[in-house]
Amino acid sequence: MIAQERERSGIAFIAIDWGTTSARAYAVDASGAVTATRHAPLGVQQIQGADFAQALDQLLGDWATLEIPRFAAGMIGSRQGWIEAPYVDCPATLDVLAQHVVWTPERELAIVPGLLYRDESGVPDVMRGEETQIAGMLDDAGDDFIAVLPGTHSKWVHVQRGRVAAFQTFMTGEAFAVLMEHSILGRLAARVANDAAGSEAFAAGVAYGSAQAGLLHATFGARTLALTGALAAHDVPGWLSGCLIGNEIAAARGWLAQRAATIDVVRVIGSSALVGRYATALPAVGVRAVPGPDDAVVRGLIRIGRHAGLL
Amino acid sequence: MIAQERERSGIAFIAIDWGTTSARAYAVDASGAVTATRHAPLGVQQIQGADFAQALDQLLGDWATLEIPRFAAGMIGSRQGWIEAPYVDCPATLDVLAQHVVWTPERELAIVPGLLYRDESGVPDVMRGEETQIAGMLDDAGDDFIAVLPGTHSKWVHVQRGRVAAFQTFMTGEAFAVLMEHSILGRLAARVANDAAGSEAFAAGVAYGSAQAGLLHATFGARTLALTGALAAHDVPGWLSGCLIGNEIAAARGWLAQRAATIDVVRVIGSSALVGRYATALPAVGVRAVPGPDDAVVRGLIRIGRHAGLL
Repeated sequence: MIAQERERSGIAFIAIDWGTTSARAYAVDASGAVTATRHAPLGVQQIQGADFAQALDQLLGDWATLEIPRFAAGMIGSRQGWIEAPYVDCPATLDVLAQHVVWTPERELAIVPGLLYRDESGVPDVMRGEETQIAGMLDDAGDDFIAVLPGTHSKWVHVQRGRVAAFQTFMTGEAFAVLMEHSILGRLAARVANDAAGSEAFAAGVAYGSAQAGLLHATFGARTLALTGALAAHDVPGWLSGCLIGNEIAAARGWLAQRAATIDVVRVIGSSALVGRYATALPAVGVRAVPGPDDAVVRGLIRIGRHAGLL
Repeated sequence: MIAQERERSGIAFIAIDWGTTSARAYAVDASGAVTATRHAPLGVQQIQGADFAQALDQLLGDWATLEIPRFAAGMIGSRQGWIEAPYVDCPATLDVLAQHVVWTPERELAIVPGLLYRDESGVPDVMRGEETQIAGMLDDAGDDFIAVLPGTHSKWVHVQRGRVAAFQTFMTGEAFAVLMEHSILGRLAARVANDAAGSEAFAAGVAYGSAQAGLLHATFGARTLALTGALAAHDVPGWLSGCLIGNEIAAARGWLAQRAATIDVVRVIGSSALVGRYATALPAVGVRAVPGPDDAVVRGLIRIGRHAGLL
């Protein structure tokens, strides 16, 4: 049946990136190429009455009737999602991810589990969706690399021997938003559509934030520089963004040094608007930034799907 | 005239701590003792129509008619205040502060200037009011000490040879407020009147925040610990507060080490509710906390007032 459907439709597998605010489905052919994509504003937070089955039908459209495996990564597997795919402990290989794939009750969808890493203090860190993007990088990047996945909560990931050995989350994007919106730092700032990544203010912020150990002190520079006229109102957001990202990079470098890893080269993965800022900030502090593919999540789903026998 | 008024009233000098949200006046006798105090919700932000002269009369009550010098510290000397008392550059002695006292146009009030410190990157930092508290510490603490002044924006101050040599502002109190109120960290937290300073969660937060170089990562622990059930909802605020204060102390220690100063002993100055948290957090990371006097600002105004010939 599945074989016939695959033959008829030319679709071998449907990969879904299902996050908090939106969902995207990809038709993948037998060679592993994406042949079509569909998108809907049906993130886990948006779904009325938690009717995930109906949301999936809506996202897939006429693909919904095909008897073809669907495989998803992201917040759809969280406690607030369709069904919880419990976190798998690091270090974790792809095989382990594939073994812990969770099916929805009617087998409408298989979901990749997230990862949990406990640091030496026992404090946990979690990711959900990024593990699949990392899996999608393995072909290009090999079995040992450092990656950063920019976002509201950016992730720094240490991959060793093809496993996610450890990672750290930095709430950089969210901190920028709340400080600009609700703290004294935003009061002297103009809201302009400035290309922060290219500005001198951004570069100055990166330099300052990466050199100052104390972030709670460093960020205050956005106020004092503006107060003394050294920073124009329209440059405050760029400077603060640079300061936060610079501090994040310096902290991640320190963490990786403790793990006996260097960050001469970092893979920058994702399609977030923040990626450009990291691609600018990293070289400014002596790190070579290598962009990862935009479709890392699809490539990861294909890879994990093969291990799970779905493809 | 002034001599007669002083004789008659028993008041030699009126010291005023005039901040953003409130104002407090102190009657000081010829021996330098405070004999009475008056308080009004007439902070710089609260004063309608910027009628500072009327606000001063209201604060002073029947003291207003006395021909006795009035001398203030705090935001009343800022650009948003009665008259700007421009920042004096560090390193600054008391003599310099006294020389730069600014009078209001009708000589209703003399105001202590704030301080400005420029770090090796040229980024400025500012204080206004705290310089007077530091001056009020010199009798007790001698000419060489480290002080922290907890608050919405806490200040770490390096005093050398009786001068304010350098300082750093940390926006710790404000960061706590905006993260709890507006970020994902507050979502798993209960709002309870917990004595954060005494709790195990606060101590755990201090230990974690002081050990983690990356604050944007460390704070995320408030979410993951709550998410995994390791931290109760009512302990989230205490843990986060500890994490931020611990990170601040570690960063300040690193900054002072660069200045060839150690922080074996730190003077904790102020009457903010945060003082108790610092007095708990500092010993937890091996620093002896010595409380400063609650009336440091009055003592500082007396001291600077004498240098300025007002007393």
